[in-house]
Amino acid sequence: MNTPSIAIQLPEWVNSFLSESPALFPSIEDRMALVVELAKRNVEEKTGGPFGAAIFDAEGRLIAPGVNIVPTANCSILHAEMVAIALAQKNLKRFDISNKGRLDYDLAASTEPCAMCFGAIPWSGVTRLLCGARDEDARAIGFDEGPKMKEWKQALEERGISVIRDILRSEATAVLQIYADNGGVIYNSRNN
Amino acid sequence: MNTPSIAIQLPEWVNSFLSESPALFPSIEDRMALVVELAKRNVEEKTGGPFGAAIFDAEGRLIAPGVNIVPTANCSILHAEMVAIALAQKNLKRFDISNKGRLDYDLAASTEPCAMCFGAIPWSGVTRLLCGARDEDARAIGFDEGPKMKEWKQALEERGISVIRDILRSEATAVLQIYADNGGVIYNSRNN
Repeated sequence: MNTPSIAIQLPEWVNSFLSESPALFPSIEDRMALVVELAKRNVEEKTGGPFGAAIFDAEGRLIAPGVNIVPTANCSILHAEMVAIALAQKNLKRFDISNKGRLDYDLAASTEPCAMCFGAIPWSGVTRLLCGARDEDARAIGFDEGPKMKEWKQALEERGISVIRDILRSEATAVLQIYADNGGVIYNSRNN
Repeated sequence: MNTPSIAIQLPEWVNSFLSESPALFPSIEDRMALVVELAKRNVEEKTGGPFGAAIFDAEGRLIAPGVNIVPTANCSILHAEMVAIALAQKNLKRFDISNKGRLDYDLAASTEPCAMCFGAIPWSGVTRLLCGARDEDARAIGFDEGPKMKEWKQALEERGISVIRDILRSEATAVLQIYADNGGVIYNSRNN
């Protein structure tokens, strides 16, 4: 039996992209603009699906970016949000980035999270979720969000994780459309 | 900004453990016995939480094992099921292990999946889920399963993923109890 290891590794273009980015992302629109641009570049560079995410601290410092690398890494768990969460925990050296609720961190996601990423958020220490495009915008180009409960926003808020939707929604949705128009691979969760 | 990579890597003891295992796991009890033993060894070796998982093909060949390495890898997404899914996809060189529904694969989990792992299953190509201990057995020692929908079993079955529960449930639950009795860290998803 071969028990390999897997590297969760951002595409090469991300480092040079970030070197041209500002040091601080003060507003929620600034934070969303970054992840929408990550999603767009991920489509242009053909390094994965049309989704970007990032973790920011309360002041707006970027702690870790993420992009969808499912088709390029051949790994279904590597959605943009999961990559950003894992890299933020590596950078901060703790698996609960909030440090038992002492600190606040945003997860910005260019599209509302799927069932898996929704379930991952309460384990991560993220205290606020910022969303761009809606579930239905992803479904409109053929993506499936998986078996996510209808009351997902409320379920997060009951756990002290606030949710803000529709930030730069049209810009975020435009990236999904570019991907679809360019014939990007629409892979889906199992749906008999 | 530091954009590190993260290795998803099994603890060192797993390779020697597997070298003493049979080549084939014909019955669902054989498959569950392996993942319960993985969970137990993970507790004894202090390499993570009391959870084991594995992917098997239809004949019972082990495709990839997984154990919870959240506290040792400092990464909240590395539950046993997620590790097994990621390693199976690496071994099979495809992010949909079913290869568009042509092949059947089991995910065996020593405890029923949390909200995140539940959401990850439909993306993975797993076609059957085998469960040992129940959600309530994990809750009994203080673990939280996250915001998982009540109808999770039905939601998987609607997507063509069958679910078998309570396989070696008492043996699986005993491992959870050993962990609790030994003062293992009970970390939880955010719950205000």
